[in-house]
Amino acid sequence: MIRADWIAADWGTSNLRVWAMQGREILAEASSDAGMNTLARDEFEGALLALISDWIDGPTDVIACGMVGSRQGWTEAKYQPVPCKPAGHMVAAPTQDSRLNVRILSGVSQATPADVMRGEETQIAGFLVQNPDFDGVLCMPGTHTKWARISAGELCHFATAMTGEMFQLLSERSVLRHSMGDGWDDAAFLAGLDETLSRPERIATSLFSLRASGLLNGEDGAAARARLSGLLLGAELAAMKPYWLGQEVALIGATKLNEIYQSALATVGLTVRAFDGTEMVLAGLAGAREAL
Amino acid sequence: MIRADWIAADWGTSNLRVWAMQGREILAEASSDAGMNTLARDEFEGALLALISDWIDGPTDVIACGMVGSRQGWTEAKYQPVPCKPAGHMVAAPTQDSRLNVRILSGVSQATPADVMRGEETQIAGFLVQNPDFDGVLCMPGTHTKWARISAGELCHFATAMTGEMFQLLSERSVLRHSMGDGWDDAAFLAGLDETLSRPERIATSLFSLRASGLLNGEDGAAARARLSGLLLGAELAAMKPYWLGQEVALIGATKLNEIYQSALATVGLTVRAFDGTEMVLAGLAGAREAL
Repeated sequence: MIRADWIAADWGTSNLRVWAMQGREILAEASSDAGMNTLARDEFEGALLALISDWIDGPTDVIACGMVGSRQGWTEAKYQPVPCKPAGHMVAAPTQDSRLNVRILSGVSQATPADVMRGEETQIAGFLVQNPDFDGVLCMPGTHTKWARISAGELCHFATAMTGEMFQLLSERSVLRHSMGDGWDDAAFLAGLDETLSRPERIATSLFSLRASGLLNGEDGAAARARLSGLLLGAELAAMKPYWLGQEVALIGATKLNEIYQSALATVGLTVRAFDGTEMVLAGLAGAREAL
Repeated sequence: MIRADWIAADWGTSNLRVWAMQGREILAEASSDAGMNTLARDEFEGALLALISDWIDGPTDVIACGMVGSRQGWTEAKYQPVPCKPAGHMVAAPTQDSRLNVRILSGVSQATPADVMRGEETQIAGFLVQNPDFDGVLCMPGTHTKWARISAGELCHFATAMTGEMFQLLSERSVLRHSMGDGWDDAAFLAGLDETLSRPERIATSLFSLRASGLLNGEDGAAARARLSGLLLGAELAAMKPYWLGQEVALIGATKLNEIYQSALATVGLTVRAFDGTEMVLAGLAGAREAL
C-alpha cells in the first residue's frame, strides 16, 4: 500500500502524469489522457482523484504545472513576466475533497517578442536546483521547442519554435506524407539541416522538393523523413542563432529528441549536455513543494 | 439540348471540372468531387461520363490536364523535362465507351532542384496562346504556388512553394487555430510580409508569436489570420527572389489569391498583371485540342 507524502503532477494539453512522492523519492506513478483540453472546469478534480485516490489518506499537497493553469484549465495561474525566477509563483485550485491541497505553478510570459510558456518553467527550475550557477541557454525540444536565456538564477528571455508541430503536420497531413517512410538517415538529416541553416529562405521551396524527389528519383522514405526533420531544424537553428552562438547550451527533453538536437548543434561546433525532461520537471515540482 | 464539339477537363487531386466546348466557346460546364485521389483506375471513365454523357453523341475528343495523368491517375502521362514547350505532349487513355477519345496532357519535371507540376503547364500554355512573346516569370498562386521562368515560348525552369497548404495546416490544424478569426487586416498582412521577406529566418519563431500575442494582448483574430498569411508569403518571396527580381512577372490564379500576391509584390516595387486561372487552363486545353 502506497501512502504519498505529496503528489507531483505534470498536466498538459493532452495528458496528465502524476507521481506519489516521499520527499524527492518516487513511490509510484500513473498517467491518463485526461489532458486540459478534454476537461471542463469542474472535471479536473475528478480526473486527478481517479489516478491518486489510493495514494492519499489525510490532507495532501498536490503540486501541478502545465496547461492545467491556463485560462481554460482548472484555475488560472497568471503568467509571470520575464525576467523572473522560474516556477516561483503558484495559486491554489478550488477543491471539493478536503484531503486535497492543490497548487498550480504559473507559466512565464514575455511582452516583446510576444511569447509564453507553461510547464517548461518548472523544468528550468528543476535544472537550476541541480545546476544553481548555470549561466547560459537551455533548449527544451518538443512540439513547441523553447530556447531560454538563464542568468543569475533567473529566466531572462525566451523564444519558441513550432518545429515539432510543423514536422508532425507536414509528415502526416500534407502532400509530403506520400513520400515519408519509417526509419532514419543521418546523412539526409544533416544535408537538410545544412541547407536551411546556411540559407534559411530555402525552407519555402525545399519542402516540396522532397515530394518531387520521391516522384522523380524514388527517394527512400526514411531519407525523406530525416531530410524534412533536418530542413525544419536548420530553419529553427538559423532563427535561434542569437541564443546559441558563443553560449553554453544544455538540452532538456526526451532522449531521442535530445539526440537529434545534439547532432544538429554539433554541426555548429557546440557540445551540449542533455538532461531528461521528466527528471527536471519532478525536481522543479519538488523544489516548489519545499518552498510552500 | 447541348451537343459538345469537344470536352475540356481540369482533373485535379480532389475535383473534376468539365466544359462542353464548341471551338473555343463554352456551351456548358459541370463539376464533381471525383478527384484523382478518390478514384481507382477503372473508375475514371465512369466519373467523367457521369458529368458529360448528356453532352456527347458520336465520337468526341476529351482533353484533360492535371493529376488525372499521374501514376495513380487514369493513365500515366509521363513528365516532360524542362526546358520544354508547356502542354506540348499528351497520351491516350483507355476507354470502354467508344464515343470517348480521351487525351491527357503531360506534366513537367525538373531534375535540379527536383520539382514537378501537373496542370499549371496547361495554364502556361493558355497564357502563351494569348501572350506569345512573353519573356518573364509566371507566378501561379495556389495550394502549391508555382513560379516559372518563360522564354521563347518555353518553360525554362520553375520552383514550388507549399505556402497555401502551410497556411491551411497552420490556420486550421495547429495550435494557431485558436488565434484565428474571420476577416482580413491589410496592415497586419503587410507587417508579417515585411518581417519574413527581410529576415526569412524569422519564420521559425514568428509563427508561435501569433499565438502568444492572442493570449497576452487579445490580438484580433482577423489580424492574426492576415499576419500568418503575410509571414508565410514573405518567406516565399524571400525564397523566390531570383525569380522576381528585375523580371516582368504575371500572375495566373483565382481573383482573391491574385490580389494578395499583387499587394505583396507591390511592396517590392513590382506592378504585375493578373490573369484568371480557369480562363488560362481552358485556353491551354483548347490549344492542345487544335494541335491534335
